[in-house]
Amino acid sequence: MAERVVEEVSNKQVILRDYLSGFPKESDFEFKTSKIRLSVAQGRIIDPRNFDGKLMKRLIKPIIGYGVARVIDSGHPNFKKGDLVWGMTGWEEYSLITEPETFFKIEHTDVPLSYYTGILGMPGMTAYAGFYEVGSPKEGEYVFVSSAFGAVGQLVGQFAKLKNCYVVGSAGSKEKFTSISVANFKFPDHDFCCFKHVLFYLCFPDGIDIYFENVGGKMLDAVLLNMRLHGRIPGCGMISQYNLEETEGVHNLFCLITKRVRMEGFLVFDYYPMYPKYLDMVLPLIREGKITYVEDIAEGLENAPKALIRLFSGHNIGKQVVLVARE
Amino acid sequence: MAERVVEEVSNKQVILRDYLSGFPKESDFEFKTSKIRLSVAQGRIIDPRNFDGKLMKRLIKPIIGYGVARVIDSGHPNFKKGDLVWGMTGWEEYSLITEPETFFKIEHTDVPLSYYTGILGMPGMTAYAGFYEVGSPKEGEYVFVSSAFGAVGQLVGQFAKLKNCYVVGSAGSKEKFTSISVANFKFPDHDFCCFKHVLFYLCFPDGIDIYFENVGGKMLDAVLLNMRLHGRIPGCGMISQYNLEETEGVHNLFCLITKRVRMEGFLVFDYYPMYPKYLDMVLPLIREGKITYVEDIAEGLENAPKALIRLFSGHNIGKQVVLVARE
Repeated sequence: MAERVVEEVSNKQVILRDYLSGFPKESDFEFKTSKIRLSVAQGRIIDPRNFDGKLMKRLIKPIIGYGVARVIDSGHPNFKKGDLVWGMTGWEEYSLITEPETFFKIEHTDVPLSYYTGILGMPGMTAYAGFYEVGSPKEGEYVFVSSAFGAVGQLVGQFAKLKNCYVVGSAGSKEKFTSISVANFKFPDHDFCCFKHVLFYLCFPDGIDIYFENVGGKMLDAVLLNMRLHGRIPGCGMISQYNLEETEGVHNLFCLITKRVRMEGFLVFDYYPMYPKYLDMVLPLIREGKITYVEDIAEGLENAPKALIRLFSGHNIGKQVVLVARE
Repeated sequence: MAERVVEEVSNKQVILRDYLSGFPKESDFEFKTSKIRLSVAQGRIIDPRNFDGKLMKRLIKPIIGYGVARVIDSGHPNFKKGDLVWGMTGWEEYSLITEPETFFKIEHTDVPLSYYTGILGMPGMTAYAGFYEVGSPKEGEYVFVSSAFGAVGQLVGQFAKLKNCYVVGSAGSKEKFTSISVANFKFPDHDFCCFKHVLFYLCFPDGIDIYFENVGGKMLDAVLLNMRLHGRIPGCGMISQYNLEETEGVHNLFCLITKRVRMEGFLVFDYYPMYPKYLDMVLPLIREGKITYVEDIAEGLENAPKALIRLFSGHNIGKQVVLVARE
């Protein structure tokens, strides 16, 4: 039996120095270069989104996040050398994947590979599941999206427009609105606006049918007062509340009763079996230019910590991506 | 054409002196005796539950609430003299009903008439709609009911037992549990307990599938931490928050997301078309003694304010009813 020669290369990694409290800062991260025997991924684009310092059990491991990678070597029958995949990888140049069944093979490469960390990956499926499955939208309804220029929110807004809904989004800064307009964002100006504090009585004189919840806290409280009868609130995230020592209290939940509102949290993992159906819907829309996706790309693994910090300070515009290596 | 002689009688009424802030007290009420030409109801049992001082537009009118009444005179084709009905009446001896289409005719009189303010009326339909329609219970699930000895809660608990669920209820005082046990309450002791502060980790080591929400505020916050994956919270009421100048903030809503919980408010009015179906289910259960209903009856309209005040202080045991006149 011929012995296989396995190449060993150096592998740059991003590691947390310690458990975090509060928002991350650059000094919380360190870079390490270790050795790895090539057995899985190379040339990856990593995604700093899926990150929770508190959940990291072993700080000696790199941070994890969604990434796109090419298979270098595989013992799994579904993956072979050269395949492109997306799934949970480490913040590093090469990763050894121990749960390959959680990965999706990339079949369509006529679209940017980075899309598989966004519109064609977890955030895309999140928007799809949350809006269509949890939100149960009807034609012409009034839809409000918070974090509307983020990885998920920008898609929810566009899905809602495609459903002939009236859509208003909010974002952390006026900048985002301007930059995204410049980037040929496809929301018609007349009904897509951006505010630090949304003026609901101006935007929704008749109230809100669907609130796609990304923010939580005070925003949720304000929205509750403006919901319509039988409204729905798909609960996707509450980014304003993460990393707070104590979360803000929500005071207006009684509106759920008087207005018969359904508030339902969801996690994308439950909906991954619908991924092929989602691709069938969204790929033609991308190719025909009927949907666009704005990315904020940081080049180089060494810029990953900064990219993550931008996310929490609200400075990213669109989906935050870190380009680790080009094809 | 023979002229009809209409009898005019004196009519005792309970009226609010002024708009309320905070919890009601006896000095907020006054009794008035007016004259009424007999055209609708006599011998009614009124229900102080549906009461909100803030919503009363004209304080010269008596307080309104659900009541059982006998028709004295009627111009409506569906109601004739002598019919028994239930619906929204005034806190008074005789009421002129201007929206008779909102009333239900009482067809079954082998059960106590007061039941039509409770198990066979609005609270019964509320428990039915909230538990079965909004809660979507499955056999053997873990159910928690707050205000478990109130007009609605005591039924939810029994419906859940009939569905082979494990049920725990909470109530405002240990007294209630004792009194209701004495009253031959049908919950088996081993899994129905009562606490001022429920110890969830003891009662629900595996978490809660359905929380029937009657209380809100801190109770809801504690429950959220103990919900199971894909749990449901039918939002029926939040009595701990009524009459507070500022409501308590709820901090643990992020649990809705991580646990994919559906919290859905409902109002019984949307479900009244199901009333005949509900009667078909519940009347046999009452007749066979498979379900019981505990009432706390105050005699005399002059005791109605006290009865209402007891409701907010948590001193009522079971459905609070005021007996205005016997048949």
